[in-house]
Amino acid sequence: MRGVVIHAPGDVRVEEREDPTIIDPTDAIVRLTATCICGSDLWPYRGIEPVDHTPMGHEYVGVVEEIGADVKTLKVGDYVVGSFVISDNTCEICRSGYQSQCVHRTFVAQIGTQAEKARIPYADGTLVATPGEPTEEQVRHLLAASDVLGTGWYAAVAAEAGPGKTVAVVGDGAVGLMAVLAAKQLGAERIIAMSRHPERQALARHYGATDIVEERGKAGIAKIKELTDGLGAHSVVEAVGTQESFMQAVGATRGGGHLGYVGLNYEVQIPGIRLFFAGIRAEGGPAPVRRFLPDLIRLIWDGAIDPGKVFDLTLPLEEAAEGYRAMHERRATKVLLTL
Amino acid sequence: MRGVVIHAPGDVRVEEREDPTIIDPTDAIVRLTATCICGSDLWPYRGIEPVDHTPMGHEYVGVVEEIGADVKTLKVGDYVVGSFVISDNTCEICRSGYQSQCVHRTFVAQIGTQAEKARIPYADGTLVATPGEPTEEQVRHLLAASDVLGTGWYAAVAAEAGPGKTVAVVGDGAVGLMAVLAAKQLGAERIIAMSRHPERQALARHYGATDIVEERGKAGIAKIKELTDGLGAHSVVEAVGTQESFMQAVGATRGGGHLGYVGLNYEVQIPGIRLFFAGIRAEGGPAPVRRFLPDLIRLIWDGAIDPGKVFDLTLPLEEAAEGYRAMHERRATKVLLTL
Repeated sequence: MRGVVIHAPGDVRVEEREDPTIIDPTDAIVRLTATCICGSDLWPYRGIEPVDHTPMGHEYVGVVEEIGADVKTLKVGDYVVGSFVISDNTCEICRSGYQSQCVHRTFVAQIGTQAEKARIPYADGTLVATPGEPTEEQVRHLLAASDVLGTGWYAAVAAEAGPGKTVAVVGDGAVGLMAVLAAKQLGAERIIAMSRHPERQALARHYGATDIVEERGKAGIAKIKELTDGLGAHSVVEAVGTQESFMQAVGATRGGGHLGYVGLNYEVQIPGIRLFFAGIRAEGGPAPVRRFLPDLIRLIWDGAIDPGKVFDLTLPLEEAAEGYRAMHERRATKVLLTL
Repeated sequence: MRGVVIHAPGDVRVEEREDPTIIDPTDAIVRLTATCICGSDLWPYRGIEPVDHTPMGHEYVGVVEEIGADVKTLKVGDYVVGSFVISDNTCEICRSGYQSQCVHRTFVAQIGTQAEKARIPYADGTLVATPGEPTEEQVRHLLAASDVLGTGWYAAVAAEAGPGKTVAVVGDGAVGLMAVLAAKQLGAERIIAMSRHPERQALARHYGATDIVEERGKAGIAKIKELTDGLGAHSVVEAVGTQESFMQAVGATRGGGHLGYVGLNYEVQIPGIRLFFAGIRAEGGPAPVRRFLPDLIRLIWDGAIDPGKVFDLTLPLEEAAEGYRAMHERRATKVLLTL
């Protein structure tokens, strides 16, 4: 099969990879119909994370082509969406809603779904079937649910976005925009998107942002305080993952408020004393997307949300290298790869 | 009046300080009947925090001697316990239960309650009157409520200690021991105290610890996992505040579990990537003791808890320097100063 492999930083190739086969009886082989490039794929692309002939990709939708003997909830031909983290969905951690910390967790990034097919372990615990064959438009929305929507949604839930709350979202990338969508769906009263890009501001407003703040760092914190009677936001989503953005998010959260964070790069060092005196509640990590997938699929099927709008560049898989370049150069927010 | 002043690291003196007077109509003057030395007082004593002829102390109980014109809930002669953080208890942050982040917050450490008297601003919002005159024994328990019990209690609440939960407490100082007491009162099923001092282990068991773990760092994390089916504790209290202890606490918390932290020293730098992949919920900061004071006073009055046992050395105020030495040299867990 064809698949994306990064040979070295900046060197993205689409080449022949071995076809996957069933190994364990809980596996499924999925023929992928769409995949995409994640902001986190840029870490190895930019050499921030080690990379050496590494298959890429962890977001995926597709059709079940083959199942292992123990797969119960799926059948060949089902259209499925999967989380970017493999989970059995039966262990004690999964049952508490933290499937991304499953005792059997594996990151799908190690499988590499920027490819024609993928072997998905623990298929029952990782994949969710859609009610039927999706339209081309629905495919885009469902693909978003695999990571970027699920992650933004988790960030908003971790930040306890909800009725009566003012939610500030640090970061206007795809995850930040999805967090705005989620905050709106969760009933937040006021949603402040922190963005200085006009086209992303427009999309943030489309998804429910009531205010835009262009300032960053200390000036950004000051602006959020100015908008919240000097107190800070009840709920803050951190969707960038740098030192500056994380501390901006901490500073924008009111005492006793909630911070949801869904990405922290390798260089971030959080000064304990600043976290301490902030007096906040913080939750984050790789998003337990599997917890939310059934609800997200239903919202997409009902036409209640349109997360697929975050894909602003669509390319065939064979042109993945151009997709990486476009995201690296910020010409695209999120690239969808067709198969 | 007489009061403790640290002239320079290690140089503790009891000397004349100016008598406090009412300045704002919301003030009260409290004649202190007991005060104590906190683990955090050792930071300036050891030169970790700057100190220069600094009045010391932030824990206190005593009798109201004078009130400002706007004080409503207290009268002269009331026996009171106060939080170590001044709060108005009426602002939006206070009403949400985070009085230690009050818009009018001041740290009592800036007042210095290792002294005969103290001016307490926002007396209605900071002090709580006891049902009557306490016995000498009750004074010890009430004094603990002012910080060390209130802080340990908050840590256990922040860690969501409760029925069905396994709680691990990192730190066997006074706050850690109080967190054990709190976890027991909150109904935790299993309470693991991390301690290698036999006398503190005994006190931890007295307060409700069901297990003792002597290992620290990675070995400590491994032991907690071994005791929890490989998952980690549901709830972890961090009550030391060093780099090693904080990362031990993060590592001992299961995915989706809760970490409550109530002290982080100036040197702690939390590696973002480790916090991220731990996938935990963390809450901490200076404890909103005022939230818990009414309940804690009632539990003490009912004889349900005996937090005063953490004081293992009692000295007259004039001998404060020996008290600091004893805590610095770990000859005492917590020193009570009588007046």
